[in-house]
Amino acid sequence: MQVRNPRTGQFDYEIQPLSAAQLLAQCARLRQGQTAWENAGVAGRIGAMQAWKESFLRHRDAVIAALSVDTGRRIESVLEADLLASAIDRWCRIAGELFSERENKPSAVPFIEIEQALVPYPLVGVISPWNFPLLLSIIDSIPALMAGCAVVVKPSEVTPRFMVPLQASIDEVPLLREVFAYIAGAGATGAELVQNADLICFTGSTTTGKKVYQAAAERFIPVFLELGGKDPAIVLASADLEMATSSLLWGSVVNAGQSCLSIERIYVEDSIYPLFVQRLVEKTQRLRLAFPDYDSGQIGPIIAAPQAGIIAEHLRDAVAKGAKVLTGGQIEQHGGGEWCFPTVLVDVHPDMKVMSEETFGPIMPIMPFHGIAEAVALANGTVYGLSGAVFAGTNEEAISIGRQIQGGAISINDSALTAIIHEGEKTSFKMSGLGGTRMGPAAIKRFMRQKAFLIKNQPVASPWWF
Amino acid sequence: MQVRNPRTGQFDYEIQPLSAAQLLAQCARLRQGQTAWENAGVAGRIGAMQAWKESFLRHRDAVIAALSVDTGRRIESVLEADLLASAIDRWCRIAGELFSERENKPSAVPFIEIEQALVPYPLVGVISPWNFPLLLSIIDSIPALMAGCAVVVKPSEVTPRFMVPLQASIDEVPLLREVFAYIAGAGATGAELVQNADLICFTGSTTTGKKVYQAAAERFIPVFLELGGKDPAIVLASADLEMATSSLLWGSVVNAGQSCLSIERIYVEDSIYPLFVQRLVEKTQRLRLAFPDYDSGQIGPIIAAPQAGIIAEHLRDAVAKGAKVLTGGQIEQHGGGEWCFPTVLVDVHPDMKVMSEETFGPIMPIMPFHGIAEAVALANGTVYGLSGAVFAGTNEEAISIGRQIQGGAISINDSALTAIIHEGEKTSFKMSGLGGTRMGPAAIKRFMRQKAFLIKNQPVASPWWF
Repeated sequence: MQVRNPRTGQFDYEIQPLSAAQLLAQCARLRQGQTAWENAGVAGRIGAMQAWKESFLRHRDAVIAALSVDTGRRIESVLEADLLASAIDRWCRIAGELFSERENKPSAVPFIEIEQALVPYPLVGVISPWNFPLLLSIIDSIPALMAGCAVVVKPSEVTPRFMVPLQASIDEVPLLREVFAYIAGAGATGAELVQNADLICFTGSTTTGKKVYQAAAERFIPVFLELGGKDPAIVLASADLEMATSSLLWGSVVNAGQSCLSIERIYVEDSIYPLFVQRLVEKTQRLRLAFPDYDSGQIGPIIAAPQAGIIAEHLRDAVAKGAKVLTGGQIEQHGGGEWCFPTVLVDVHPDMKVMSEETFGPIMPIMPFHGIAEAVALANGTVYGLSGAVFAGTNEEAISIGRQIQGGAISINDSALTAIIHEGEKTSFKMSGLGGTRMGPAAIKRFMRQKAFLIKNQPVASPWWF
Repeated sequence: MQVRNPRTGQFDYEIQPLSAAQLLAQCARLRQGQTAWENAGVAGRIGAMQAWKESFLRHRDAVIAALSVDTGRRIESVLEADLLASAIDRWCRIAGELFSERENKPSAVPFIEIEQALVPYPLVGVISPWNFPLLLSIIDSIPALMAGCAVVVKPSEVTPRFMVPLQASIDEVPLLREVFAYIAGAGATGAELVQNADLICFTGSTTTGKKVYQAAAERFIPVFLELGGKDPAIVLASADLEMATSSLLWGSVVNAGQSCLSIERIYVEDSIYPLFVQRLVEKTQRLRLAFPDYDSGQIGPIIAAPQAGIIAEHLRDAVAKGAKVLTGGQIEQHGGGEWCFPTVLVDVHPDMKVMSEETFGPIMPIMPFHGIAEAVALANGTVYGLSGAVFAGTNEEAISIGRQIQGGAISINDSALTAIIHEGEKTSFKMSGLGGTRMGPAAIKRFMRQKAFLIKNQPVASPWWF
């Protein structure tokens, strides 16, 4: 299977998808390793994960280099690598606390006490996307590993290069390499993984996520889905205009907008709308494409070629329906890659694709509103409910509006904070996902069955009939 | 739709299943009421639930009378009514603690703090079975109500009489009656409910549960399933024989074996096998059918007529394959009802239906084992993983075996303790269910989305690029 380079458009890399038999063998190997991994206990697993962090740091430059080729951008590749190291530490700490909690507790019946245990699912399958290939491949994998599961990851076939140096870092840790493997392949391999794992985590589009849910239901296994978003931002007249415009620009265009948590719609109170638009355009125009070099600017290429087509169609549809482009506004070809300059759109309305469907590009459509009720109705007017942002003069005012937004994480006087804050527990609303939070101790517990031992602790006769 | 009386075999009752339009109207009414219910806060909801407990106690005798006609047995009907009152108190206490926990917490970034919120799914649908009609209709409903959801319950069409006095008790509580309704109907009504609710809880057979999971996946809504079991018990030579036989008899035949958590297979260490069998038979023969009157004995009729056919088939299959009946052993007709005297079976082996499929009758097949490994392999040798029991000379020895049994709740030196112990958190293994625990604070949280407000708490400039 040929792999395209997003900066050159050349198919300069190749992966060999696993055959069904190879996948089965890989899963069997990991299942076999899982017993020792579970029996190592949380201390043993923390030790192995810390050893992985050390070996990852030795492979860090190679991972960043491969990831940069995969995605065509470097700033975010460095961010991904750095977040992996800190994620390992965070999950080790959370797991250490979680597993120290187990002790007996009383029941309502005096002579019966309860001991709780947690039993990992043996083999977790993780299917991850191309926009943050490293980060989104470990966001479920690390808590699953901490739970005592074996994990097989099928990253997107669009960005597979980073797997090689990353797997090399894993393979330097004897216990870990028996339970943690990345496999190459596209949709068919992902579908085959659903047939072999005991639990599936999927991060990607809502369309594919619905199919994964149905396939998991057919197999009667649990599934956790983190899907698309169309995150709204609401900016009140009382907000700090400089902070709001800077924050929303970052939240909209980082990773060239290719983030589920990026801001895709901006609603601004009508009294400050002209000024807001003006400042956002000014700041946007200071940005540069990261072409010809990684360091030439802040905006990388569109990673997946078909996505460039979707962005172009959303722009075309918006302009055809009356939207005005104030800066940016088109897909450009440079050096064989597809690029999109950050785009400010005005005169938009809800029946444009750019206001209702996930664009996944550096597009900032801005719409004025009059009154909180209208802002909330507009913000909630899509099938998505991932996250959002509210800017106001006080946090209290912003939170009171945030309570009305259907989404799992609301940034208050900043945007897209889920990119850097990992302590908040959130779940998806509406079509943006399904299943428990990916953060905090509950994120580890979702990979385990809960078991209760109900213990008669006194040699009394059974209270029953005889 | 005609309803059979399990003691007489007469179709002496009628229900009118809701039309699709009526169901839609009912759901719309409950959704409308849900806002006030959520806004009442946990204190308001606790107040309403306590008012319900009071009104239920006024209707208690009528509920027990209807439930006794529905099920043909009274001992368990009284138990169900008493457990409802204590369940209300328990959930009010757990909810009070859960909702008092919300406060801000720091994040890893110094100037960003986190506030957590919980947002209920508006409308929860509950589909409940006929074996404990009252108890299993409220086991998910009460935590969902405490979460702030509206709840519509579709109990089994086999046992619908109790709904009328129960709904009367609900209707005496103004706030509650707007958000909590029982509806009449069979499978088609349940399927229609899946199309209208935001989350589905189903308790019943594994066969139907799989279909419910697939229907929920089609609609992209969460689902919680509590399904069939084939609970094993392991009895070591070191166990207290008197306690073990008494406890296992109760655990096997209470409610005429019509419990998901009933013991359906007994594995006894070979050295004590003859004595165990002898004592169990002696104790079994002291039991009587509750015929002609409710109080004539301990064993009620088979509630659902088709179940009598399944039990008869399991007995026929076992005997045909070499099993010996030591007491009981057949379905009997008395007064128009179907009855099964508690049955001890020996010379059984794993390929008999009675050792692998859910029987749901008062059948005790006993098999000797030699060595712990064989006992564990036999216990784990079905597609089910609901619960189980271990009897040994010490609790430590029993727990060490219990750790190896695939099931969510293991009774230690007693059996079927999940019937009376509600503090243990457990989930199902294998085909016995799916989703989080029904007990403890997590049982309330599964009815809510988690929302995180990520709050910039200092007026510092955004740390981003601009």
